[in-house]
Formats: sequence, structure tokens, C-alpha cells
Amino acid sequence: MSNKRNFYLHDVALDDALSAWHAALAIQSLLTPLGQETIPVPQALGRVTAQPVWARISSPHYHAAAMDGYAVAAERTHGATETSPKRLVVGVDAMPVDTGDPLPPGTNAVIMIEETQLFPGDEPGGSGGSTIEIMKASPPWQYVRPLGEDMVATELVLPANHQLRPQDLGAIVGCGHTEVTVYRRPRVAILPTGTELVTIEQLQQLARPLQPGDILEYNSIMLGAQAEEAGCLVTRLPIVADAYAAIRDAVAAALESHDLVAINAGSSAGSEDYTAAIVAELGELQVHGVAMRPGHPVILGTARGKALVGIPGYPVSAAMTFERIVTPLLYLWQGIEPPSLPRITATLTRKTLSPLGEDEFMRVTVGRVGERVVATPLGGGAGVLMSLVKADGIVNIPRFSEGHNAGDAVTVALLHPPARIDQTIVVIGSHDMALDLLADQLSQRTSGQNISLKENRFLSSAHVGSMGGLLALQRGEAHMAGAHLLDEESGDYNVGYIRQMLTPHGVRVVLLRFVQRQQGLMVARGNPKDIRTLDDLLRPDVAFVNRQRGAGTRVLLDYELKQRGLDARAIQGYARQEYTHLAVAAAVKSGAADCGLGILAAARALELDFVPLLQERYDLVIPLVHYESELLAPLLRAIRTPEFAQRVQELGGYEVAGMGDVIETT
Amino acid sequence: MSNKRNFYLHDVALDDALSAWHAALAIQSLLTPLGQETIPVPQALGRVTAQPVWARISSPHYHAAAMDGYAVAAERTHGATETSPKRLVVGVDAMPVDTGDPLPPGTNAVIMIEETQLFPGDEPGGSGGSTIEIMKASPPWQYVRPLGEDMVATELVLPANHQLRPQDLGAIVGCGHTEVTVYRRPRVAILPTGTELVTIEQLQQLARPLQPGDILEYNSIMLGAQAEEAGCLVTRLPIVADAYAAIRDAVAAALESHDLVAINAGSSAGSEDYTAAIVAELGELQVHGVAMRPGHPVILGTARGKALVGIPGYPVSAAMTFERIVTPLLYLWQGIEPPSLPRITATLTRKTLSPLGEDEFMRVTVGRVGERVVATPLGGGAGVLMSLVKADGIVNIPRFSEGHNAGDAVTVALLHPPARIDQTIVVIGSHDMALDLLADQLSQRTSGQNISLKENRFLSSAHVGSMGGLLALQRGEAHMAGAHLLDEESGDYNVGYIRQMLTPHGVRVVLLRFVQRQQGLMVARGNPKDIRTLDDLLRPDVAFVNRQRGAGTRVLLDYELKQRGLDARAIQGYARQEYTHLAVAAAVKSGAADCGLGILAAARALELDFVPLLQERYDLVIPLVHYESELLAPLLRAIRTPEFAQRVQELGGYEVAGMGDVIETT
Repeated sequence: MSNKRNFYLHDVALDDALSAWHAALAIQSLLTPLGQETIPVPQALGRVTAQPVWARISSPHYHAAAMDGYAVAAERTHGATETSPKRLVVGVDAMPVDTGDPLPPGTNAVIMIEETQLFPGDEPGGSGGSTIEIMKASPPWQYVRPLGEDMVATELVLPANHQLRPQDLGAIVGCGHTEVTVYRRPRVAILPTGTELVTIEQLQQLARPLQPGDILEYNSIMLGAQAEEAGCLVTRLPIVADAYAAIRDAVAAALESHDLVAINAGSSAGSEDYTAAIVAELGELQVHGVAMRPGHPVILGTARGKALVGIPGYPVSAAMTFERIVTPLLYLWQGIEPPSLPRITATLTRKTLSPLGEDEFMRVTVGRVGERVVATPLGGGAGVLMSLVKADGIVNIPRFSEGHNAGDAVTVALLHPPARIDQTIVVIGSHDMALDLLADQLSQRTSGQNISLKENRFLSSAHVGSMGGLLALQRGEAHMAGAHLLDEESGDYNVGYIRQMLTPHGVRVVLLRFVQRQQGLMVARGNPKDIRTLDDLLRPDVAFVNRQRGAGTRVLLDYELKQRGLDARAIQGYARQEYTHLAVAAAVKSGAADCGLGILAAARALELDFVPLLQERYDLVIPLVHYESELLAPLLRAIRTPEFAQRVQELGGYEVAGMGDVIETT
Repeated sequence: MSNKRNFYLHDVALDDALSAWHAALAIQSLLTPLGQETIPVPQALGRVTAQPVWARISSPHYHAAAMDGYAVAAERTHGATETSPKRLVVGVDAMPVDTGDPLPPGTNAVIMIEETQLFPGDEPGGSGGSTIEIMKASPPWQYVRPLGEDMVATELVLPANHQLRPQDLGAIVGCGHTEVTVYRRPRVAILPTGTELVTIEQLQQLARPLQPGDILEYNSIMLGAQAEEAGCLVTRLPIVADAYAAIRDAVAAALESHDLVAINAGSSAGSEDYTAAIVAELGELQVHGVAMRPGHPVILGTARGKALVGIPGYPVSAAMTFERIVTPLLYLWQGIEPPSLPRITATLTRKTLSPLGEDEFMRVTVGRVGERVVATPLGGGAGVLMSLVKADGIVNIPRFSEGHNAGDAVTVALLHPPARIDQTIVVIGSHDMALDLLADQLSQRTSGQNISLKENRFLSSAHVGSMGGLLALQRGEAHMAGAHLLDEESGDYNVGYIRQMLTPHGVRVVLLRFVQRQQGLMVARGNPKDIRTLDDLLRPDVAFVNRQRGAGTRVLLDYELKQRGLDARAIQGYARQEYTHLAVAAAVKSGAADCGLGILAAARALELDFVPLLQERYDLVIPLVHYESELLAPLLRAIRTPEFAQRVQELGGYEVAGMGDVIETT
């Protein structure tokens, strides 16, 4: 193994890591805005003033009529009343003005045209002149915008370090400027490294499929977008393979023209993790390892008067360390603070353990179920980017805490506007593709009067299996659960479990018919062993792969074998257990087994053939109180549209007869 | 007057106006997203999915090692303990893997390299093979990222109508896409109209100064930025003069290539207000006049399958009607809701009257003074853009309300992040340029450790005169007041007023020395009448213009005249009153008077000469409780820096000796 392996990870607390890095940045004058540039005002939206803006001219720059009418000297109108109107000669005592016109000399008030009556003179344009009659005295400065009413030349219009909004741009031009001096945008380079990395574009060019060991490169797109969102100019560099000199040279070149270079990944302490050594060679390494989760192998340094960081390879670690550590600096370089996320208090639905000594940032879904706002931790480690995609918020568990108990109040930093919480339907239970489709269906816009989109609903779903879903309903943590629990005695679905798990707890529910889905045998392409029925599983040349005990699919298999009088023990591989549909499919794909029982989607996902054999019911279980709520109304409507049934059928592997019917109310 | 004047304003309620317009838009299929386009993922930040994104490939797409170490069959490790370790042959029972590598066939778990001990074989690469020793059994799938752990091919990754964030872009690429289908961005044209409009650029090209009657065009920049902020592609069209055919033709041309054309202004019912007639000629006019304040002359229509609106000319009306009426449509066209502003409850400091039947949107400053969050209405009509620049929030007074009393709780939609409230110093009182400079000084960034910028302070100032400031302190509505109240008896400043207005109410304050400012005579350029002293005011050839009774400057003049034994009644124009420094300057500028007393800044603003005569003290009055607070600490530090004193002196017209000294504590 490489001699570069002498850079060990030493996790330090997040605060300490930031202090050490910031101290080094300060020495390099990198803890202050980077520089200024003067740009045309119309291009300055969202930029930050580097200099105060002082008014060059006043606005208005003259006393201006604020109404269409006649400019007068207020003194000349004194005494006018309805019973004793006063006449003013147009062009002498009363000068016609339109809104915005300058007040003629000697006038200091405007009378609205609607409040005058015009008496034409002898002849148009003649010396006789017209006359107006007024019935009310006019106070001085009535309907006049005095000079400088809005802005006075020399006064402060905007301070430095102010992020420019549309009204600010108007004011800058309105007080006489064409340009504005703002901080320049930081230049950020993202360097993806790794011999195993490929881009989709490369595969398309090479016309080859992904192969085991290929890793799709997408972190640089995500990190680049984070820097872009923070107002930076971003360069996404080409992938560099794991070779010390190549990475070092790419970094050195990027440092020439960027304020910050982020290397992704190679930041751990493995045999091909060169980042720490490269940072040390090109500059100074301040931090290698941060005690935050997700996070850990973060590298912080400076080199050649620039900031140089190593970002972990797992996507959630990459996104969250960039956001907590790098983004604040990118904003500081532009003179502003990062936008703060809205925060709410929620009830945690599950006990969480957090290692002492680590700052943990836990992804949660958030929804209002009944009176409570509940936060449910999303499973999945640092490699599960979908946990960040699906998260409604982040709960920070500080490093001196061991975690939380279920029922604890926690503070959630929301990734969506707070208003969305009241539009969120929390679904916890078994996962199904048709439920995904329902989430999409709810987001479909139909043309209509409803511009406010307040009918919008968002499905926030956590997949914990059918039993987990019923338990969530029992505890009042979800609006709805998807379940396909077969009662081996009766052959019916879900009803028995509801009576056992929900009814005794006083949770009345509606059992709603959703889909019947096909279970079948996943077999290699072309079905080389010609496996057609459950009986074939007993053939000596057929190797089966099973699901774990308790899985719905296993219960279904056992039920059907029993119905057919087949002996499970005679099946080769019956004892071999996998934990998901997809793991079963993967075993078949790899050739480790000839077949396994599962759903069509899993077979499709791995491009296997599928022999449909059985049907199982997948119902929705909805507490009555939610079933009748405004929140769920759009979802129930969507389920019952022919359009949605059509879309589910197009997925393949589903029967939709009776979708949306109430099977039973408990 | 033009025969186009037959389009009268008929104000309708905002809700009714929107309903009428939306109904017309719906008929034209304009109340739904406009269309789709497919773009490369890296360009899609902030765009909105028009189609759901389904995973094309699984991620990972193979069972992957999650640690550097050895892949094993978990069964082979059973029984290993510290006291009875187990040996595995490398390359046979234990296959070396790095993080991300595919699991070799027959393996289903990974042992971390740190948990093994290596015994080299007889010879490198020889058939003898190395051996590792393990002291712990490995459960199946330990340190393995199973196929599809993150995303499973065919599953829903993102629904339609989802605004794309960095993590979403990562997920889209991670599941096998290079492009994403999003709603296209609306194309918006802004057409400024008005014969009197000029741009700064035009004046620079013509090398001529602004002349009375010229109106600087900046609404199109502001409105364009609003549309840009809402994600649109914006065309700012050249100014068109007030000529019916020219405007109509420009609008017709813009309709060809834009989804919405906004005409600014000509939307009222004046002689040159053509917009309504043009909308009616080119399409259908639904609304002419909306009962909202600021607002009113808003025109809503449709033409040639596009949206066509007339936006009022006053900048605050323009910005606020665009935001309330047009912006939601621009977001709807992209499938999303407008971002919602954070809301807080605040105590209103002043009684406000609101006309029944109008939706009013009141600009307020917001700050936390003691225990209360207070909202103070900003003065100024629809022409005062600075009221929108300075506003911290908007209070909506619905059309069935007559307004609020002082002390009422109101809901404020915040224009800044809520956290800023606790960094806001509320200053109410007399206005002074040095206070502007202080606001800027507070926003200066100094290089240092403090990356969080939590030391930042924002000055939120309302100008209500010295007395108004002391009253605000009396009522606990401000942290600080600027005051220059001369006691005619003692010749001292502020002290007597504080004893009278604050001490009896239990408000203990620190009177802090701020600046001495020069008052002097503003005279025409070159001082043609050679006015040098107060005695000159009595000359028969000198016409004076005075400030209103009660103004600090008038009190100062009277005091000084009395000290010198001069008879005010002998001054020509002594009775002529203006209400601001600037109005006095304007009277001198126009030739209506030869001189007036005021401050240097006013003379400078109108490019007048200035004869310094007197000095007045402008102090800061700070309640003791705030003086000692964290909030004010950075401000007090800033006042006491030599750098700030230097900047004030550079303004001219100021003495800064003793700035920041405590004159008295009551």
C-alpha cells in the first residue's frame, strides 16, 4: 500500500475545526470579503454592496405635481367654500399641470382637476382666458411632491454590505447612479477525483453500460450547485484518476484562478486517499477529520493564499459538510450571512442514539398529525442521498448529547417553507411504486381558478414495512399507512391486524382499497430454466432465494405452498434469506440463484424476466379522523380518478379494480 | 384633451380584480404552467420539474463495500472471538476491497482493515497466500451498501412540480439521467412609457443635466428585477413617449415574443393615460383600478393569448402591485407558489387610519425594544421608494378594517430574516447625515475571527424630529433618539427637555455627545448679494426664507437674533415658512429668496453656497437600559473609533470633538 497512508484521520469537534481553519484563513486575509467590482445596476440583483450608496441627485429633483389639475399659490385659495366659491384665471392664478410636472414659479399647491369647474374664456387661446371655480381652500403643499421627498442628494440610500433587492436597484438609479460597487463573486472549483468515477456522458460516448465498480460522478454537480446557490462562479473540473501527481497538478492549476478549491473525495485515510498529503504539499493542512455525522473525513487547509478543502465522498456527507463548513465562508466573502432556515419545534417519533462527541445532523420528515407536529428520522447512512432529497428538515444533535427519546421536543431546521407542513401528508408503512405515483399525481397541476395552489399536497413517506406503518398509526404519527399483511388463517388482508393493533387503542380507521399487485418469480433473462409455477421450485435443478422470515412476500409464499400442499423444506435455497425484493433480484442477476419471489418492479429494475404467479392486496389504512380531513381530501380525490388508475395500470404488475373503495370502517 | 380619456378608473376590491383576471387567463390556458423544456441537469438549479423523475438505474447498482478491508462470506466468520480468533486466506476466504468496490461473488459482508491482522504468505504473490486473523464474527451485510440502498431503478426520485435544489440535481444524475424536464421560464417584457422619462445613460450621452420635469426612469429596472427574481426571462424595452400608436405598436410587438407584457405607466385616467385603451384595442380589459393602497391605477387584461398589465407609475405602487398581482402568476406559470415571507406579531407604535374598502399594505420598521417587538409605520406616499427600501416588513390592513390603534398587535410579513430583528437598533428622532454614516459604519466588515457576523447591527431609523424622538423613548418604542433641542433660556441642548419629557416617566437616559453641526446661510452660487452675517438679514435688498415655528433651526435663529439684539420683525421674509432644510434651499435655488438658514448638506444637495454662522449640538439620547445592552455595544464602539470621527469630518460641516463622551446620565 502507498506510503501516502501516513495521514491519519484525527476527528476534532466541528467548532474546533472551524476555529483552526478560520485562524489560518484570517492570516491569509481570507476571512473578509474578497474584493469589489463596479457593475451596471440592472445586473446587480442579489449582489452585495461593497460601498455605501449616497444619493447623487434628489428625488424628485424639483417640486412636482402629484395630481393632474392646477398649480396655485395656496394663499390665493383662502376663503373658498361651497357657498362662496372662488374664481381663478387659468394661466395666471391657476397653471394647468399633469402629475409629475414641475410646479410653476410662485405656486405651492395643486388642486385636483376633479375639484374644479372650468369656465371657458371668450375665445380659445384668447387673452380673455378661461376661469376655474374652486369651492375649497388649498393648504400649502397639497398634492405636491416636494423636492427631495423620496431621496435628498448626499444622503445615505444604502449602507455597504446590503444584499440588493428589486426596490434597492430602483432607488440606486433613482438617486442618479448607473452603476453600483459590489463584492465580487467568489470563484470556486470542484475537482472530482477517483479512478472508478464515470459520468453518464462518458458512458453514452463509449456506448457501454455501467459496470460493477463504476461509480457515477454526481457530487461535483451537487457541490457546484451549492456554491452557485451561494452566489459563486463555479468551475466543475474534469474527473482526475487516483494518482497523486495528477491530482496535485490539477489542484495547483485550479488554485491559480479560484478562491476555493474543493477536492472530492480521497479525503479519508485509505490507500488512495491523497488529498491530505496534497494539501500539506501545496500549503498548510489545518484539519483532517471532523467529528460530525454525516461528515468525518473532511480536510481543511489553505494553499497559495487560497482556501483548499477535501470533501468526503459519500453524497450526504459531501452535501452537509459543504453546507456547514464551506458555505458560510462563501457568504462571508460576499459580506453577508448565510440565509437562515426557518425553525420549528416538533415531537420526535423515534428514539435516536447519537455518539457522544459528534455533532449529528439528522434528516427528518415533518408533518402535522392531529395537534402535533411530528418529526420522523429518515433511515439510511451517509450514502443515501435520497434521505436528503426526502428530508423536510434537519435536527442538530450537539456533540454533548447522547440522543433523544421518542416523544422529545426537538428543534427542526426546515428545508421547506413552514406553510408546507400543513400541506404534508405523512405516510409511514410498506413501500409501493403506486404510492410513488400517487405522490406525483398529487403534485400534478390542473388548469383552473386556483392560483394559490393551496390545494397542493405533499406526500412525505417513510418506508418501515406494513407492521411499522400500523404501529405509527397506533402512536398517532402518520396520516396513512400502506399495508399488505396477509392473515394466514383467513387468507384476508390487513383486517385482522387492524383489529389487533389499532382497535384496542381506540384508533378507528378506514381500510381503503388501493391496488392488487402481482407477485411472481424473478428469473434470468429468457428464463433459461423454464420456471413457470411454484411446483418448479421443488425441481432439483432449481436454486431458490427466499425473503426473510416475517416479510409479506415470505408469508404469501408459505400460505400458497400450504394451499397447494407443497413442502417448503424440499425447496433448494428456502433457507437462504434476503431482506428486500431487490436483494432477491440481485441474487438472481448474479447467478447465485435461479429464481426468487418478488414484485415486477424489482425484476424490471435489474432487467430480469418475471413470471407472474400470485396477487396480493396492498391497501391504505387511514385513521377516520384524517380520512375526513381537508388535508386528505385532494389525495382521496386523486386516488378515485380514472386518470390515476390508468397511470397505475401502465406501470404494469397491478390490478386497480375498486381502487378508492372503502373495504371496511372499524 | 384627448378623446382617449373615456376609460375611467373603477376601483374594485383586490380579490375581485384577481378573480376577474384569473377567469380570463384560465380561458386562454394561462392559469397553468406555460410549457416544458429538457435541459442538462447542471443548469437546472432552482428550476421546477415538469415531469416526475424515475430512477433509470439503481444506486449503488451493485453490492458495494462500504469500508476498506476484506469481503467475506459472513458464514465463514462464525465463531471468531478474541480468545479464539479465526484465520482466513486472502484471495480465497477474504478478498481485499476498497470502499466502493463491488463485493466479489460469494461474499456478503466486509471486515474493516483495522479489525484484521495480516500474516504474510511464504512469498509475495506466491501460491502460499497471505492470511488474516479476525477476532469477531461478521453479520451478513456488515459494511456493505446493498444494491439499490439509495435509489432503485424504476422508483420515483422526484415528483413533478418540485423546485430543484443541489441535492436533487445530485439524485437525478445519480439515478442515471443527464437531462431533466422542467417548466420553461416565463418571458416578461417591461415597457416604460412617458414623454418626460429619461435614463441616466441618455443624460450622460447628451451631456445635459436633469431638468425640472425630467423623470428618471427606474421602475423598469425594479420591475424587471422582480420578474427576474421570480425566475423569468426579462426584456426591458426602450422608453416609448406618450403617443397612442407608438405605445400600441410597441405592446403588439412585445406580445409576439413574451408571455406577459407590463406597461408602466399611463394606467391612470389622465389625458395621456393610454394603457387601458390599448389593452382594450389589442385584447380584453378585465380590470381598470384596484382598491389597494398603494396601488389603484392597475390595469389587468389579456391580449393575443398573453397576459397584458398596466402598472402604476409611482414606484411603491408599481413594486407592490407587481408583487401582489403579477408575481404569483409568474410562479404559477412555473408550477410553484411564491416564496412565503416569514411572519411575526408586533406592537404597532402609532394609530393608523385606513380607508374602508381598500386593502392597505403598510411599510413598517421592526425592532425588539426591551420585551416588545415594535412596528413603526414609515411615512411617505406611493412616491417614496425609500419607504420600501427602509421597510423591515409589511402590515396588511384588509379592506374591511378602518386601521389600528397604537398598541394593537399586528402581523408583519418580514422583508428580512427574522433573526435580524434582534440585531436591529431602532432610532427615532431628528435626521442627520452623520447618523447615516453611522448606519454605514455599523455595516462595515472588519477582518477577523467572527465569521458568523453576529456582531452585525442594522440601524432602522424613522425621522420624526427631535421631539418625536423623545416621545418615542418615553413610550419605549426606540433604542435611541437623535436630538438637537436648544433651551432658549439656558442656551444648552436637550438636557432640559429630557428632564421634562423622560425623567418624570421613569426613563433614565444617557445623553451622549455626537456631533456639533454648522448652521449657516444658504445663498446662490457665488453669493451675489454678499451675505455674510445675521446682520445682513436686515438689509432691505435681502429676502429671507424661514423655517416653520418649532423647528430647531428656527429656535436657534431666534435665540441668536436675541443674543445679538437684532429685531426679527425687520427681516424681509421672516414670516415665510418652509418645513425642511431642503425646501428652504429650494426656495433659494429658485430665486424666490436670497438666503435661508440651514445645514451644509442641504446647501450641497442643491449646489448652493453656504456661509457657516452658528454651531448646534446634535446629541444621542439613549435609555440607560439600552446603553448597557449587548445590542448597542457595537454601535457605541463604532462611535468612539477615530476612523468614524474621521469619516464624519470628511462630510464637512461637522465638529467631532468629544464624540461618544457621556454628557450626562439622568
